[in-house]
Amino acid sequence: MSALITLTTDFGLSDSYVGTMKGVILSILPSARIVDITHGIDPHNIAQAAFVLATAAPYFRHGTTHVAVVDPGVGGGRRPIAVFTETATFVGPDNGLFSRIYQTEKVRQIRLLSNASYHLPGLSRTFHGRDLFAPAAAHIAQGAPPSSLGPEVSDPVVIAVEQAERLDDGSLRGHVTYVDHFGNLITDIPVSWLENRSDWSFVFGVHVIDGLLATYSHVAPGEIVVLEGSSGWVEVAVRHGSAADSLRLGVGEIVQARPNVQMSERSNVLK
Amino acid sequence: MSALITLTTDFGLSDSYVGTMKGVILSILPSARIVDITHGIDPHNIAQAAFVLATAAPYFRHGTTHVAVVDPGVGGGRRPIAVFTETATFVGPDNGLFSRIYQTEKVRQIRLLSNASYHLPGLSRTFHGRDLFAPAAAHIAQGAPPSSLGPEVSDPVVIAVEQAERLDDGSLRGHVTYVDHFGNLITDIPVSWLENRSDWSFVFGVHVIDGLLATYSHVAPGEIVVLEGSSGWVEVAVRHGSAADSLRLGVGEIVQARPNVQMSERSNVLK
Amino acid sequence: MSALITLTTDFGLSDSYVGTMKGVILSILPSARIVDITHGIDPHNIAQAAFVLATAAPYFRHGTTHVAVVDPGVGGGRRPIAVFTETATFVGPDNGLFSRIYQTEKVRQIRLLSNASYHLPGLSRTFHGRDLFAPAAAHIAQGAPPSSLGPEVSDPVVIAVEQAERLDDGSLRGHVTYVDHFGNLITDIPVSWLENRSDWSFVFGVHVIDGLLATYSHVAPGEIVVLEGSSGWVEVAVRHGSAADSLRLGVGEIVQARPNVQMSERSNVLK
Repeated sequence: MSALITLTTDFGLSDSYVGTMKGVILSILPSARIVDITHGIDPHNIAQAAFVLATAAPYFRHGTTHVAVVDPGVGGGRRPIAVFTETATFVGPDNGLFSRIYQTEKVRQIRLLSNASYHLPGLSRTFHGRDLFAPAAAHIAQGAPPSSLGPEVSDPVVIAVEQAERLDDGSLRGHVTYVDHFGNLITDIPVSWLENRSDWSFVFGVHVIDGLLATYSHVAPGEIVVLEGSSGWVEVAVRHGSAADSLRLGVGEIVQARPNVQMSERSNVLK
Repeated sequence: MSALITLTTDFGLSDSYVGTMKGVILSILPSARIVDITHGIDPHNIAQAAFVLATAAPYFRHGTTHVAVVDPGVGGGRRPIAVFTETATFVGPDNGLFSRIYQTEKVRQIRLLSNASYHLPGLSRTFHGRDLFAPAAAHIAQGAPPSSLGPEVSDPVVIAVEQAERLDDGSLRGHVTYVDHFGNLITDIPVSWLENRSDWSFVFGVHVIDGLLATYSHVAPGEIVVLEGSSGWVEVAVRHGSAADSLRLGVGEIVQARPNVQMSERSNVLK
Repeated sequence: MSALITLTTDFGLSDSYVGTMKGVILSILPSARIVDITHGIDPHNIAQAAFVLATAAPYFRHGTTHVAVVDPGVGGGRRPIAVFTETATFVGPDNGLFSRIYQTEKVRQIRLLSNASYHLPGLSRTFHGRDLFAPAAAHIAQGAPPSSLGPEVSDPVVIAVEQAERLDDGSLRGHVTYVDHFGNLITDIPVSWLENRSDWSFVFGVHVIDGLLATYSHVAPGEIVVLEGSSGWVEVAVRHGSAADSLRLGVGEIVQARPNVQMSERSNVLK
């Protein structure tokens, strides 16, 4: 079975950068299978890349090597690392890109990628994707033992990941953490926090929407729907439209979930 | 020979959706070869995807599995299906995506993808590309017999495909059905309907262009040319430019082809 | 080891054109590995494609077949060719696309792709990427001998490649030749021309910047930096920003490098 390597970067697809990384990987490991997760991360947006990577990685088979390069500090003091978890290996700069991986996966060890024999000769200081991360990933996928890469790293950089809070009144206060291609607003409220799904109202911008639904089809085209998102987060969508455009909401916007206690109480009174 | 699977979606390339589908396919069938046809279908545009898929599919070898996911009704009542033709298999929602395939290929059978053992566990209701179509396609490409997928479907959804008409006066009335990356306007007038290619004039917007040409090079840069398109449709182009931008024409616009009988008649009179 | 084929085009990713080329290649050579360099070349921009191709090609292993299709003259008189160098083969139209390859690689022979048995039947005159270059590349990657392709070509088209000049006063006069996805301005001044890297000032637009630096990290976010680019050219960047947007500079803009002799002389006087 060929080794599987994925790529997640902010390089875009118009330059030769991504193709060049693949050329380097296939020069070292001609049988490697390379899959693009995305190269459309907003330039230098580490938090966005951390989200995208953590969303996609669980769907790849055990033993996959994930290369992530969103690297505003390239050539400076930030460390190049490989993170070995129980299911996969993550290769990239130690700038917080793997913060969500540290939360969701069991980390076995982290290694500094200091072994120059796993770098391209003539290592540049502006394109470590090509000169350092791609060749290191190819060597790792080929079976280079972690100890050969460099010394252990015990203090990787972790960036704060926005998280919903449970407030004292029983409501939840979350944020939009990601806006996808369709304009769906993905929040940091876990679906698992909402037990009786019809018993919640959602407040964002000037809107109040009742009920968490399972699918777009429950509302008419053009209507707002709050959904159980496919990665376990509450999502705000507009059926057949873009919630981001229609509601003019983006990353960071507050989304609140309120239990409909008044309604239950009122119905008790009426009985 | 590895199984070949293609993907056609409206998912764009900025999110992890496409990469995740590939992760799922390769988890089930590690040797699969995956080729992107495009992920740039306009969101929810089933007719456009039907056109793109029908244009590309004939160039893939027999036995290819084509996955198409433009799925505004995901999670609702629309059926997930696999269409087995004499040359290939098409996997996706039964919403008309395969309408052009039904016209151009011999369909052997259509199956409902109801066998839950070919779905990911915990099937979501918003991302069937990942949870249903990708795994079903991997199993089909791996050789799962059609009968194992689910019951036969005899009434697939067909959407009206715009078609040029032959009018009583011998002229043809067609439409722009697709605008490509270069701004070329692809019509629904089959080149095969135009026998003597110089004997036609084409009318669209405020323009009248004489003759169907074989290639851009017959006109000067910046000039309008009506062409035998590479997929058998009459195309309107501007050499070294964008016809869509220069002529301000788009999908749905009427394009007429008129036989130049007046000219022949007049020349007869003059003789 | 599977044959490796790369693709560089101006086709974009929204249509089926690129996927169709891959379908053709894999129909002829099912085991081929195909890597996209980019499909984001500006439509008809041969010089840009020549630059991108020459930047990426050295990072692919020996024996790679590179297909490049930026082909405004498709269907006209321009010749379809294959260029065999000591390390790789380049397939595409003879319109100057390979001008930089002729400068940097040793060419062994160039062949006209006139053998119709390596074309698709029914060769169109508007899509040679699909009908001629893809199948020819697959046959070449499969081992078709150069002499079987067609007669030798001894006078390939070469386009002028902009080059920096050394002026009499010791300064260098270059241009911006490429703007990347990050807004970095890549010039035609070779880093190798600048021996003492701190002893130069760079002049572009209204800006004068002292010193050629190795990496972005030497300046604060938002500041301009002149860099040793990763492909050996002097680059103008803005840390964590876009130089193209901030400085409103683009391709063709003049960038001058001036040795700081005055400063050294003045300091001599002052001593």
